Parts: sequence; C-alpha cells; structure tokens
Amino acid sequence: MTRIKNLREEALEFHKVQPGKLEVRVTVPAQDRDDLTLAYSPGVAEPVKEIAADLENLDIYTNHANYVSIVSNGTAILGLGDLGAAASMPVMEGKSLLFKAFGDVDAFPLCVNTTDVDKIVEIVELTSPTFGGVNLEDIKAPECFEIEEKLKARGIFKGPIFHDDQHGTAVVTLAGLVNALKVVGKKIEDIKVVANGAGAAGIAIIKLLMSMGLKNVIMCDTKGAIYEGRTAGMNPWKEEIAKATNPEKFSGDLAGALVGADAFIGISAANVLNEDMIRSMAKDPIVFCQANPIPEIWPIERAFEAGAKVISTGRSDVINQINNVLAFPGMFRGAIDVRATDINDAMKVAAAYAIAGIVKDEELSADYIIPSTFNPEVAPAVAAAVAKAAIDSGIARRPMDPQEVADGLKKRLANQYK
Amino acid sequence: MTRIKNLREEALEFHKVQPGKLEVRVTVPAQDRDDLTLAYSPGVAEPVKEIAADLENLDIYTNHANYVSIVSNGTAILGLGDLGAAASMPVMEGKSLLFKAFGDVDAFPLCVNTTDVDKIVEIVELTSPTFGGVNLEDIKAPECFEIEEKLKARGIFKGPIFHDDQHGTAVVTLAGLVNALKVVGKKIEDIKVVANGAGAAGIAIIKLLMSMGLKNVIMCDTKGAIYEGRTAGMNPWKEEIAKATNPEKFSGDLAGALVGADAFIGISAANVLNEDMIRSMAKDPIVFCQANPIPEIWPIERAFEAGAKVISTGRSDVINQINNVLAFPGMFRGAIDVRATDINDAMKVAAAYAIAGIVKDEELSADYIIPSTFNPEVAPAVAAAVAKAAIDSGIARRPMDPQEVADGLKKRLANQYK
Repeated sequence: MTRIKNLREEALEFHKVQPGKLEVRVTVPAQDRDDLTLAYSPGVAEPVKEIAADLENLDIYTNHANYVSIVSNGTAILGLGDLGAAASMPVMEGKSLLFKAFGDVDAFPLCVNTTDVDKIVEIVELTSPTFGGVNLEDIKAPECFEIEEKLKARGIFKGPIFHDDQHGTAVVTLAGLVNALKVVGKKIEDIKVVANGAGAAGIAIIKLLMSMGLKNVIMCDTKGAIYEGRTAGMNPWKEEIAKATNPEKFSGDLAGALVGADAFIGISAANVLNEDMIRSMAKDPIVFCQANPIPEIWPIERAFEAGAKVISTGRSDVINQINNVLAFPGMFRGAIDVRATDINDAMKVAAAYAIAGIVKDEELSADYIIPSTFNPEVAPAVAAAVAKAAIDSGIARRPMDPQEVADGLKKRLANQYK
Repeated sequence: MTRIKNLREEALEFHKVQPGKLEVRVTVPAQDRDDLTLAYSPGVAEPVKEIAADLENLDIYTNHANYVSIVSNGTAILGLGDLGAAASMPVMEGKSLLFKAFGDVDAFPLCVNTTDVDKIVEIVELTSPTFGGVNLEDIKAPECFEIEEKLKARGIFKGPIFHDDQHGTAVVTLAGLVNALKVVGKKIEDIKVVANGAGAAGIAIIKLLMSMGLKNVIMCDTKGAIYEGRTAGMNPWKEEIAKATNPEKFSGDLAGALVGADAFIGISAANVLNEDMIRSMAKDPIVFCQANPIPEIWPIERAFEAGAKVISTGRSDVINQINNVLAFPGMFRGAIDVRATDINDAMKVAAAYAIAGIVKDEELSADYIIPSTFNPEVAPAVAAAVAKAAIDSGIARRPMDPQEVADGLKKRLANQYK
C-alpha cells in the first residue's frame, strides 16, 4: 500500500525539501594538511604525471570509468514531450539516483540547451576526459538515433554509449517476452508480434527481438502499419524497419494488423487498444501495454476480460512492471567493471536473459514474469551477464571473473550508505 | 609534523585506493516504490512541469544553483604546464573535494578536450541547465582571459563565473597584503609594488590591488619590466597592464625594478629573487613568493636574512600560506546563497577583507598575516561578506541576511558527514 495521498503536492514538497536528490560527496578525509597534501597539492601532481605519460592511468587514479553523463536536451521528457533542457533536470537527477542506488554508478546530469545533434555529439566527445560512459535520456526521435549513431561511428568517445529510452526498454521488454513465451508455450521464431509506437523505444525493441529470431512482425504508428513503400510520416529509421518487417506489406490499421497476432507490444499511448482487438489475436495472447502513465488499455482488467493471457505495463501498481531500472544500472556496472568500449547487442541480450532468469521456472506464471524493481538479485546478475558478454565479444579492456562483478556490486551496495 | 614519508608513492597509492576522491551521492531514500514514485516516475513530472512553466523554479526543485562545473582543458595544470584535459582530472576532483569540504558546494569536474576558446564557452553555456555556476581552472593564459571575458560579455550563462587561478589568488594575495601593510605601517596608496609573473594570477592580482588604490606598480615577466611601448612578448592583456602601470616606463629587469620597492609579489618561478634584490628594496620589505612548489627565493630563511619583514609563500610548511582554498569555497557559497549573477570586484574585495579580518589586531604579526587553511571561521565569514557585497551591488537575485549565510554554511559543514 502506498503512503502517498496527494502525489502532486507531495512530489513538489519532496523536491523542494531535497532539491536535486543528489550531492557530490567526498570519499576521503579533508581534515588536515596531510589530507590535502595527498588529495590535492602537491601530491595530486603525481597521478597527473602518470596520466599524462599514459592515458590508461586515467581509470586507475581517477573515478573516470565510473562517471557517466546523463545527457538530455529535454525534447522527450517522460510522457510529457518537449519541455526543454532545464525542465529535464529533476528527471536526470532522479536517473542519477537510480544509477547510484541500484548500480553504484556515479552518474551526473548533463542537460544541454540545444537541439543540434552535432553539438550534443561534440559535447559528449569533448567531455570524455571526465565521463567514462554516456547515457542519453529523454531526447526525441529521430535525433536520439542520430546522436547515438554518430557517436558510435566517429569512435572518439571510447566508453559505453547507451540510450536508455531505446535499449533499456528493449532489454526489459525482451526479458518479459522470454518469460511470457514460456508461460504460453510458444517460441519467438514462430510468433507474430505487432508493435504499436515507432519512436525510440518501439524501434529498439523490435530490432532486439529480431536479433533473437523474431521474424513475423508488423510495426504500427499513428498512421497504421509501417510497410515498404509507405510514404506518409516516414523517416530513415522507419524506412529501415519497413524493409526488415511486414513482408506481406500489410497496409491497414492496428486493429487489422493484430488479427491472429501472438503478442502486442505497445509503447504508444493510452486507449489505442480495445477488447475486440485482443479477441482477434491468436490463442493465449500476450499483451504488453507500456504507455506511460496510462497503458494502451486501462484499467488492465479489461485486457484479461478480453482473453489476454499475460500482460505487462510500465506501472508499479500492476503485476509485471516493465521498468528500465531492472536493466541499466546493472548493465553499466558490468560494462564499467570490465571496461567495455561499448554496450553491444550481445550485452543487451545477456542482460535480458539475466533479468528473465531471476524468475525461477517453479515461480513463473502469468502473474509473475518479471522480477520486482527492488529484487536485490537483479542488478548483480545483470552486471555479471553483461560483463561476460562484453568479454566474450572481445570488447572488454579489463576482463575479470563475472562472479567477481556480481559480488563486487553486492558489496558496493551494502557499503553505500555507510 | 607530517605523517607523509614518501610523497610520490603515497600520493599514487592514495589515488589508486580511492580513485577520484568523489562520488555522486543520493540524499533521499530509494528503498521502496513510494520512494521512487516521489523521486522519479511519476512524481518527478510535477517539478518538471513547474520548471517548464517558470524557469525560476529550476533553483527550487533541483540542486542546479549548487552545482558548479570545474572546467579545465589541462593547459596549465598546477606548476606542470600543458598536460591535457585527461591529466587534469585528479586536480579537478581534488578541487571538487575542496569546494565540498570547505563550502558545501556540489562542484563537478568538466574536463574538456579542446583548446578552442569558443568551444569551451559554448560548452559552459549549453550546460547551464545543469550547472548554476562555473569555475575555470588550470587553463593557460591568454585563453583563460578570453573564455572568462566572452562568457561575461555574451551574458548567456547567468550564474557566477570565476577563474580561480586569477581571482582566487588575487583575493588571498590582497588579504595577505592588507595585513602585511598593517604590520609595516604603510598604506596601499603610498607603496611601490613590483610583481613578477604576468600570467593569469599576476595580472588579476595587480588589477585587484589597483582597484583598491595601488598606484605605483611595475609588472615584470621573463623579458623584464612591462611598459607602454614594449614590443617583445606582449599580448592584449599585457598591453592593458602596460598602459595602466609603470608610468615612468621603466624598461630594465626585475632587479632594477625592485630598487626602492615596498613589496615584491612573485607568481613566477623558483630562484628569480635573491638577497641583493631584497636588500635594494625600501624599509621593511614585504616579500610574497608564491611560485609553486618552490618559491622565488628558497629556503625562505634567505629572505629574512636579507631583511624581508613579512613573507608569504604558497607552501603549507611555511608561515603565511597564500592558499586559494581560503577564498573560493566561501565565495561561491555566498554567491550561490543569494543567487548572485556574477562574482564581481566588490565581492572579491569583500572576500579579501573577510579573510584578513579573521586575524585579529592583537594576534597580527609578521608571522601571522593569513589565517590557517583549516580555520573554520574563514569560509562562513567569506560567504557572508560576499553575499553582502552581491546584495549591495544589486546583483543578488535572492537577497538574504548575510549572517544567515554564515550560519547556514556552519550548519551545512557540521552536517556534511552525518
């Protein structure tokens, strides 16, 4: 049961009393001359010289590897839209909180007052002496794709680059689908998926599912099914999706696409799904309604009444919450610990299976396909799996035993508030 | 007595064990769903909407005002020179430590991999949704002047802009000189000052002293006295100094300039001063030797033997240490608390007098003109004086009782590690 009576009032009061939810905290004593002699002048000259001699020393003598910038321009804040970089600050501070509380990652907001893709790319690249990784957040499509693609293509930023709205959502959705398919006894290769919402998250989800063997998929947006040859409301990313999906070039609306589908994945808006659509789906339909804060069909009982077998939402007050916090803190922890130079598809898939694997076969049911946000086993398991995948794909600059990664995170979290 | 036996070894070990010296710390609970409902989704949408409606709310619902970026490109690191942005990281992390431990300011390194003045200006401006203030650090002259001037002239960055190498040093030097002049019974209007070193700190010191009434001053650099009409080794900032100082256009070397001088201020290099030069100065010479780590004359006993009446250095193992940490944490605290839109000359002078005033008249002597770095009275006194000066100069967006500023900082520091 919640203690919160008036969300708006309490959320504003909470942020007023604890503005920012974060502080920069000193981890060493600064009480006398000797303390400052080591931590600052003249002692600090020694690590400076070591780093100048060999850049590899940056990760040994500074916290560089564990600093992640949370970069946003506020063009796609939560479900609220383009409210600007300043308005995104409370969200980025909250994101930083999640990074720290679940992954012991020192992530810091970097809200940038520009919609210019190249400027954002340049800022990320130029601040790489401070930040070992970057998490893009709440940047609208297609700019979020362009920024990520350019950063990766240019190769100047050497650490993990992650756009959580895309890849975090995709990872947790895949985790949920893996377990949902076990519940209904189907295989990803055999099913038909209809996704609604072709923004950052939707496209990333479909790409990740296809990398896992999904073949029969139709993506819809507000103009209906996306197919090769469609001209209205397209962009290069939808063109790519159009080529890779919907081989029969179905050109109808969402309702038409859903006929006979095994799974619906909504990353769109409230009220786009109804009972008749669910009834038109294949046996034991999987209905993922991740629109925030109001799912595609609401209240969710309507989905069950129409025959949905397994549901998930983005809400914490409904079973099977698809929450990115299950993924990104552990993913960054694992990537950072082994000094991965990227977060690649293998690492995303490993994270998804690690999350899914927390739910043991004997516990698995339609009501429980996704572990709780607060399950302390999740982030260490994700971190270990991601570290192993990074090592196996040859992009770990400092390989280490994945079990040590998991144990290390447990220790970090246990010591965090001491 | 120091506990440190081998500085290099211990400083490297210290940085290896506690890489970074900093962490991003969560100040609110993140233990259950209600915690995250308020701190993150969906509660965080409420402050987002308030900020989108009125940017003034940014400082109410986020920690924006207290976030200061420590911007460096590593072109003038400590006394080590241009070693690049990555090598500057341990220094900026140390600077952040000082900001926090002495001023409870949440300052975060922002090391930028560029020597392009306009790019640095742009990064500071574009990241203003996150950072309420900026401290430029270890950026070489003349770029440091250009960056500061452009930032102030463009007026896009709305918070305090401070280049500590210039203004912090100038403030603490002025504080020392105020008390040194009391010791020798002279007035700033009447004395002759010779400054050696026309980099960022030297020029800022002389400008600040002249704003306090100093008239008779000669600045020297490695090419000797700077005078109007000199052509070798000039730049626009030295041209400005040439016009404003040295009215008799003395064109000789440092030794010649020092004849009859009341005070020497060295912000230059080891061994540029000798006994004969000091002997040529006026009665009761004031000798400030701030070259780091080796002062302009060393060991400092040589200065006393040659007749120096009051000395200071940058070293912690000699009396009268001129240490910027006396100034910048309290200055930012005061500026932030009253939401000053700048750190202007009046605030710098106020800070200098606050520092000087910590040494009571009955304690004042040639051996004690500057309070200790660890004197807990300093930062609150500086913060209050700076807040008052900001209010008096009409640049405080949120005026408050300066005594509350001082008391607030004491309380912040007392609670810092609880």
